[in-house]
Amino acid sequence: MLVVLKANLSAADREATARALAEIAHGNRVTPFLDATPPVVVVRGDDNVRARVQGLDAVAEIRAEAPYLATRAGHPENRTVRLDDVVIGGKDVVLIAGPCSTETYEQTLAAALAAKKAGARLLRGGAFKPRTSPYSFQGHGEEGLRQLARVAAETGLKVVTEVVSPEDVPLVAEHAHMLQIGARNMQNFALLKAVSRSARPVLLKRGFGCTVDELLASAEYILAGGNPDVVLCERGIRTFEGSSRFTFDLNGLAYLKAFSSLPVIADPSHATGNPTLIPAVTRAAVAAGADGVMLEVHPEPDHALSDGDQALTPDAFSTLMREVRAVAEAVGRAF
Amino acid sequence: MLVVLKANLSAADREATARALAEIAHGNRVTPFLDATPPVVVVRGDDNVRARVQGLDAVAEIRAEAPYLATRAGHPENRTVRLDDVVIGGKDVVLIAGPCSTETYEQTLAAALAAKKAGARLLRGGAFKPRTSPYSFQGHGEEGLRQLARVAAETGLKVVTEVVSPEDVPLVAEHAHMLQIGARNMQNFALLKAVSRSARPVLLKRGFGCTVDELLASAEYILAGGNPDVVLCERGIRTFEGSSRFTFDLNGLAYLKAFSSLPVIADPSHATGNPTLIPAVTRAAVAAGADGVMLEVHPEPDHALSDGDQALTPDAFSTLMREVRAVAEAVGRAF
Amino acid sequence: MLVVLKANLSAADREATARALAEIAHGNRVTPFLDATPPVVVVRGDDNVRARVQGLDAVAEIRAEAPYLATRAGHPENRTVRLDDVVIGGKDVVLIAGPCSTETYEQTLAAALAAKKAGARLLRGGAFKPRTSPYSFQGHGEEGLRQLARVAAETGLKVVTEVVSPEDVPLVAEHAHMLQIGARNMQNFALLKAVSRSARPVLLKRGFGCTVDELLASAEYILAGGNPDVVLCERGIRTFEGSSRFTFDLNGLAYLKAFSSLPVIADPSHATGNPTLIPAVTRAAVAAGADGVMLEVHPEPDHALSDGDQALTPDAFSTLMREVRAVAEAVGRAF
Amino acid sequence: MLVVLKANLSAADREATARALAEIAHGNRVTPFLDATPPVVVVRGDDNVRARVQGLDAVAEIRAEAPYLATRAGHPENRTVRLDDVVIGGKDVVLIAGPCSTETYEQTLAAALAAKKAGARLLRGGAFKPRTSPYSFQGHGEEGLRQLARVAAETGLKVVTEVVSPEDVPLVAEHAHMLQIGARNMQNFALLKAVSRSARPVLLKRGFGCTVDELLASAEYILAGGNPDVVLCERGIRTFEGSSRFTFDLNGLAYLKAFSSLPVIADPSHATGNPTLIPAVTRAAVAAGADGVMLEVHPEPDHALSDGDQALTPDAFSTLMREVRAVAEAVGRAF
Repeated sequence: MLVVLKANLSAADREATARALAEIAHGNRVTPFLDATPPVVVVRGDDNVRARVQGLDAVAEIRAEAPYLATRAGHPENRTVRLDDVVIGGKDVVLIAGPCSTETYEQTLAAALAAKKAGARLLRGGAFKPRTSPYSFQGHGEEGLRQLARVAAETGLKVVTEVVSPEDVPLVAEHAHMLQIGARNMQNFALLKAVSRSARPVLLKRGFGCTVDELLASAEYILAGGNPDVVLCERGIRTFEGSSRFTFDLNGLAYLKAFSSLPVIADPSHATGNPTLIPAVTRAAVAAGADGVMLEVHPEPDHALSDGDQALTPDAFSTLMREVRAVAEAVGRAF
Repeated sequence: MLVVLKANLSAADREATARALAEIAHGNRVTPFLDATPPVVVVRGDDNVRARVQGLDAVAEIRAEAPYLATRAGHPENRTVRLDDVVIGGKDVVLIAGPCSTETYEQTLAAALAAKKAGARLLRGGAFKPRTSPYSFQGHGEEGLRQLARVAAETGLKVVTEVVSPEDVPLVAEHAHMLQIGARNMQNFALLKAVSRSARPVLLKRGFGCTVDELLASAEYILAGGNPDVVLCERGIRTFEGSSRFTFDLNGLAYLKAFSSLPVIADPSHATGNPTLIPAVTRAAVAAGADGVMLEVHPEPDHALSDGDQALTPDAFSTLMREVRAVAEAVGRAF
Repeated sequence: MLVVLKANLSAADREATARALAEIAHGNRVTPFLDATPPVVVVRGDDNVRARVQGLDAVAEIRAEAPYLATRAGHPENRTVRLDDVVIGGKDVVLIAGPCSTETYEQTLAAALAAKKAGARLLRGGAFKPRTSPYSFQGHGEEGLRQLARVAAETGLKVVTEVVSPEDVPLVAEHAHMLQIGARNMQNFALLKAVSRSARPVLLKRGFGCTVDELLASAEYILAGGNPDVVLCERGIRTFEGSSRFTFDLNGLAYLKAFSSLPVIADPSHATGNPTLIPAVTRAAVAAGADGVMLEVHPEPDHALSDGDQALTPDAFSTLMREVRAVAEAVGRAF
Repeated sequence: MLVVLKANLSAADREATARALAEIAHGNRVTPFLDATPPVVVVRGDDNVRARVQGLDAVAEIRAEAPYLATRAGHPENRTVRLDDVVIGGKDVVLIAGPCSTETYEQTLAAALAAKKAGARLLRGGAFKPRTSPYSFQGHGEEGLRQLARVAAETGLKVVTEVVSPEDVPLVAEHAHMLQIGARNMQNFALLKAVSRSARPVLLKRGFGCTVDELLASAEYILAGGNPDVVLCERGIRTFEGSSRFTFDLNGLAYLKAFSSLPVIADPSHATGNPTLIPAVTRAAVAAGADGVMLEVHPEPDHALSDGDQALTPDAFSTLMREVRAVAEAVGRAF
């Protein structure tokens, strides 16, 4: 439950209330957000706990609906997420690039160098791949993680990669700078709880069948669990329109920027599935206020083991980057 | 039927073939596009006509599927649509603005002056309004048309307004510079045929339940009927996402620009139904390559008889226009 | 506007009020529903008319939103629609069958005889076909209407056929027993107004991008215009699921039966586009409470000029009819 | 990878090939389906394994796309899933009923007795609840499992309950007769792999944003992992239609029955979210060929901690069961 405290409490009273709540919850995790407006505390517990919480003088209300912390109601100013010197949600529009899945060290390095040359700060690449078919290539797992980490160390890029199971969180967190929750796992609440306990920032992709409010509610799981570093990603939703693989929800991106203070990035590669459409969608996302863009780049798209048909070649990528820079500057951002 | 002629015919042979087709069709309308690559002729007629057409030496194939003329296959270079000195589809991004429906002469004039001041070249306004409920305000009809024409004459703006019935086409064409086919009528084929016989350019809005290929097929009705001046408009589709009234289909806009040579504009007001989201969506549409944007502006949105909640105030409108100018220039356009 | 009268008026007062409203509307059409609960009168007019209506003592409220007459609020008991001896909305589940488009007299007669043998009471067939492409077969028009009328006279079947343009309404009404408004014209309000003035019953198909409430609002146009004989038809909506051409909205069918008193039929042929799925969907529609089913049947589906791939052969059709009879009886209906 | 063996191998050759494949995979799991037509073997391994597999004479092809085992191509005859004396996929239409979440032992017992009285064979109830908000009631966990197991033992009902995390599979399998994968976890591949190694049958619910082919591909994960007992469940998809919570995909149910041999059940409670619509949808699902229906029943719907608004009261439930019996018999099933 989200325990909303009265707005006019002194700092000392807030802390005393947080301690009282921890005692009531005896043993359950309590996560205070005493600087929020109004201050709130996330408390776990059964109906007995709830009843005792309700009895506290300092409590204004108890909420069951999310999102709250993920919205501007819970955090009015824009949030930033840092990976050492890379800041997502600041003035810079951040480029995240790389292959869909890591294949060999050499291929990953080649893609990373191309991405870096074009301005990328983060390297994306899949070691654990959620695939629709059990017979499709599922990623190189731990070996893929090590390749990514090695390439990151050699290029100075930060690594973001997907985690698909709660028990893999520590392993992925050891090798990557940022944990990705894929679209198909956006409402895998056991996984959200697992990454909420990690020290690594989380890139949370929107499920293709989920609303933006549900995306914020999933972010709330991570925030309420104690991990403040969440970046949202719009990657296309399912609609009746079949001319592109998914429908990039531009309204949704604008909505997230307006009603949430979390950084929001766009993934035009997955949202279109079509290299012809990627440049226009990328420029548009930046013009709409995206804090970053995530693009697949592959030295030889025709030979990729997965999703090769949606990867830009390094050349097309460089051209696009010049266009993105101009648009970013037009809306007061840097790139 | 679309009769595709052989590619290597001389100009004289093309014309002779067109005359032969007109004779075969005896009485039915024949519309030749002899400069297309390959040259094509639209012929109406029954199975007997079809059989005789197939017998002609100069005929390469007969097609039943649209679109063709609306695509780059049928017309490789970008098309432009002119309303006197206003060119849609050229270097300038064109602004179309005005109230959802015309109410009084004074209100229409005030909105027109605000629109013009912010850079609009076309005035939009509804005299015939397609409304979901028979009890809703249905527009002022002919009186509304006259108000629009008067305001246009006084401000120098061109007028685009909706036509909802085949028999109204001549009346609307008399008062307006451009005929609008609304989303609900995108597949009203009797109406499409009627505007294909008008000398006025047509603004064809995408149906909220229709694909981009169907939009092009509807444009094909107008082109094949002999009216070359069609502008497409993306105005949002229906999806499961309920945070905005419709989902602006950015991929669809990019697809139309890539695969069709017709000008394409965006309508962020209807696509979002939410003034908070309109600025981001407008900037994005221009960054993606839109040839124009259509926006509702109302001097007093809170007092509008229809759709007031999606209209920008003149002030918000002016701010947005400065942003749009910067984005347009960043992508090599003017505004 | 829908003028809702006070509930406790005497019959004489109701009629006096209706006369007063007709006078206020001077010249505009006034349609009274004095037996509704509460009694209502549909009045056309501008703001001056509205102001005078509001001044009447007998008026409880003025509504702008539809639907009302189309719902059980406006008409609690089930409505029936009669075509001579055929009753839609009564105990019998009514079968409407025939080819997608009429081709020749012989083909139409063969399909009609097959349909009649299997239990059909109405013959469907398209003379005016709304087609996505201008190059597709558009129907035989008036000649097709005459074929249908001749086959109807010879077989005793009633004819339902589509009308696509307001000016065609009298012609189609002359040859057919029932006018069909197709999915693409569900929100062609000029056409809805035209059929509201016809004496023929109307079969109103749901637009594939429209909600059930919008379907009821479109029915309201016809009812409020003075034509009480409307049958609704669920024929599938557009969704992301691509394994069938459309998604039959079973919930929507159940909703229409629960909240409207109009008869509701189902069109499994268009809703699935796949003969493999048609029998299951037909049985289900009847089990859910549909008052009729509309099926394409074609003597030689492989040779049909349009939509042949979704037509049942006469043999498959007969088998299905036996199944439908059993299900109809299980839910207390006859067939 | 799915290794398809040549069709004409002797039983001895098939087994020899399976042993050869196990050796090639050295250490990776190999799952043979030697009675399939043609025989197939699921093999895990990298590109080296793949190359060696391709070298075997007995191998016809290697496939990466699912589904195969889940379709009639891989298993032509209807499959049945047994829980002791309860057979899903046989002549009987099976009723699964119970509360959305288990609250107290008494409430669960009351609901179970009502369900049993009306004909239910399986008791549903959530101990681990996937909830959109982190502040919503998440289920009673292990305590809830024990309540369910106790009520099952006392009533003779079998228990099906949701598992949300791979590490919980053994615990849930200990207390429940059948494991449920919820809609939000349909593409949680780590969880699918975990239940594929369990001896318990699996009820796999369709994700509301996923296609029927993806549902079959997810079933393929479980089948290919070695668990043959999968029951599919249609529970509604997301569409633009907002009059019901989801859109029950009747075409999808018919498609699954036609192209897969797995048992398929329907969940009208979640698909509609509206008790008014549940009876019609339930009757329709059975008429379409569903092998079972899953319904929420709650002794006091107004006091339920989750989803109370979609639960039927015991009385409404009994009435519906009589209707279902009649429809089941009309389509040659028992209930």
